[in-house]
Amino acid sequence: MRRLLVAKVYFDHNSTTALKPKVLDAMMPLLTSQHGNPASQHCFGRRAHEAIEQARRQVAAAVGAQASQIIFTASGTEANNFAITGIASNLAPAQILTSRIEHPCVTKPAMAMARRGWQANQVAVNAKCELDLQDLQTKLATPTHLVSVMLANNETGSIQEIKAVTALVGKQAYVHTDAVQALGKIAIDFNALGVHAMTISSHKIGGPLGAGALVLNKRIDIQPLLHGGGQEKGLRSGTENIAAIVGFGAACELATQELADFAQHTAALRTALEVGLSQLNAVIFAQQTVRLPNTSFFAFENINGETLVTALDQLGFAVASGSACSSASGEPSHVLLAMGVEADLAGAAIRVSFNRDNTLEQVHAFLHALKQALQKLRQMTAVAA
Amino acid sequence: MRRLLVAKVYFDHNSTTALKPKVLDAMMPLLTSQHGNPASQHCFGRRAHEAIEQARRQVAAAVGAQASQIIFTASGTEANNFAITGIASNLAPAQILTSRIEHPCVTKPAMAMARRGWQANQVAVNAKCELDLQDLQTKLATPTHLVSVMLANNETGSIQEIKAVTALVGKQAYVHTDAVQALGKIAIDFNALGVHAMTISSHKIGGPLGAGALVLNKRIDIQPLLHGGGQEKGLRSGTENIAAIVGFGAACELATQELADFAQHTAALRTALEVGLSQLNAVIFAQQTVRLPNTSFFAFENINGETLVTALDQLGFAVASGSACSSASGEPSHVLLAMGVEADLAGAAIRVSFNRDNTLEQVHAFLHALKQALQKLRQMTAVAA
Repeated sequence: MRRLLVAKVYFDHNSTTALKPKVLDAMMPLLTSQHGNPASQHCFGRRAHEAIEQARRQVAAAVGAQASQIIFTASGTEANNFAITGIASNLAPAQILTSRIEHPCVTKPAMAMARRGWQANQVAVNAKCELDLQDLQTKLATPTHLVSVMLANNETGSIQEIKAVTALVGKQAYVHTDAVQALGKIAIDFNALGVHAMTISSHKIGGPLGAGALVLNKRIDIQPLLHGGGQEKGLRSGTENIAAIVGFGAACELATQELADFAQHTAALRTALEVGLSQLNAVIFAQQTVRLPNTSFFAFENINGETLVTALDQLGFAVASGSACSSASGEPSHVLLAMGVEADLAGAAIRVSFNRDNTLEQVHAFLHALKQALQKLRQMTAVAA
Repeated sequence: MRRLLVAKVYFDHNSTTALKPKVLDAMMPLLTSQHGNPASQHCFGRRAHEAIEQARRQVAAAVGAQASQIIFTASGTEANNFAITGIASNLAPAQILTSRIEHPCVTKPAMAMARRGWQANQVAVNAKCELDLQDLQTKLATPTHLVSVMLANNETGSIQEIKAVTALVGKQAYVHTDAVQALGKIAIDFNALGVHAMTISSHKIGGPLGAGALVLNKRIDIQPLLHGGGQEKGLRSGTENIAAIVGFGAACELATQELADFAQHTAALRTALEVGLSQLNAVIFAQQTVRLPNTSFFAFENINGETLVTALDQLGFAVASGSACSSASGEPSHVLLAMGVEADLAGAAIRVSFNRDNTLEQVHAFLHALKQALQKLRQMTAVAA
């Protein structure tokens, strides 16, 4: 009888994270005794309202913003759609620039604006997964009203020079940045970045699913994506998901406290991992780039990424082939293609993303399992050939 | 020293409900050990995917639909915005009809489509809060491509004859219904209603905030409101809020089991309440209308609704003045104004909405408190006059 092993070690934290116990503790009162609609006049409602305002201050503090600049949404995807659609809807149609390595929840709303008279174009990146600032400058010669470049890439972990982007763009256009993968992994200072809007999300930092935010520069004029009861100053309607928002606030506060430790701990794990990967002749993408400390993206020639992910899953390790979103589609990573990686090698890509709970022992065990899996898959390939 | 009393008895279930303990039990594994992105290929992801598909079947069963017809969203507000914007975006602009008693998360997206060439109009209701079918027929003489009429009103509880609406509209337009307040309070059969799309929400039926759904007839062509990773068949992107969706499924299953009991129990409470209200000379709105069993909407002449809500809150009872959404704005209920109620009397309105946990003792205590509050407020008015 074949024994079905399931993954025990989770190395896929850029995809989603487990709730931190302290975050769940903060949420539990809202899930048990303290219900109430924050818009209600009675005490249940007032208490719900106060809980949300406290979370707003916690989230703002984590990114160097003011509480009044935080608009809560249900997710990073919603915040990105809100930013692109909501900002563009209030402007005269012109060029809208994103980068070739954005998450589809930025590029697709940008492309959707094409139906409303906008011209959506993408700025190139170099082989190191860094935005090509020369290409940005060239494209800015065309009248441009909105630019969106992510702060850190979900697949390679590459960190973009957003300050250079905002400096180049100047007053020509609004600038939005998707900081979902950066939050909790590197320090973020909203004002220093010089952007007009920034997306963050809860479930990537040990907070619950169901909460995200768009951080807004006060000078920006934005149309709501969700119309209705007028919550969030009329910018995002819908009864607030109080438990999720409170959890997001708690997770932001914890992430700020643990930021230095997170970076140090996960960077050490990654160094150990990448030493081992090099010995196994892996191609490591964006290795020389300024990257998120916890992320390693690599491939083995002639070994399909999804096949390897499945093999590793059976050996007890949960990793990703590209992002979780694109892994369902089965297409090679658009990020690697943008970096000029050949489609075959891009299709071989595997992503490991650590958090603070992962250990050096797990990394060593993973390298051992990887070696096993590679041997087996290469034997199978050899037999088939 | 003044003693601050807080509301202990919750009579505001049309606004939001506490999580049912069984629902929280179903959610807890997802909030503790079972995290995972449903799009991920590894076992964490597959398990998350399976949990969502089970919830989809539970939600579908509660409204007589097929699982494949359920598109999960983060809220009823999102589902209503998605329905109106998403359906209209794929059609040639024409008239879009809503009713005068819709929730703003239906009327506002309809009005927003006016900027994209649509003509948004509202069908009248009569003094009993019933849709004026004659007015609908008259307005349908203008080319109309989308009609949205709610199944049950959140304020009066009036239940609309959606089958008559779909029969009148015929093949001229798509019909959407907002069934957020109907779910769990009356039986819903999606196919029998003959609508093309229907909105439901979790947190009104003892489920968590963070989950709603649009039920879609398979023939309908709809554009996503949230673009991105392509979740929910490409119709609603964003990592699924697994815990909330699982809770929504569990709440739907419970609501179906408890439906008859809910109706019988809350109707008995309401009868007792309204006997008492009549003795206090309340005006009870839509009392002779086919209504949700748990809802009573009433007013006392010359007594401001918000003042009375605050007085009742201090006496230990949480009730609403109009809907939670409009109560924050301080404007008189648009529903009562649509019924032809004078603005002064509309501004006096109070809503009580029960659930199964409320008791006859609470109703009697409430009537007692109400009598006290009225006497005190009338004395204050007399002194001031």
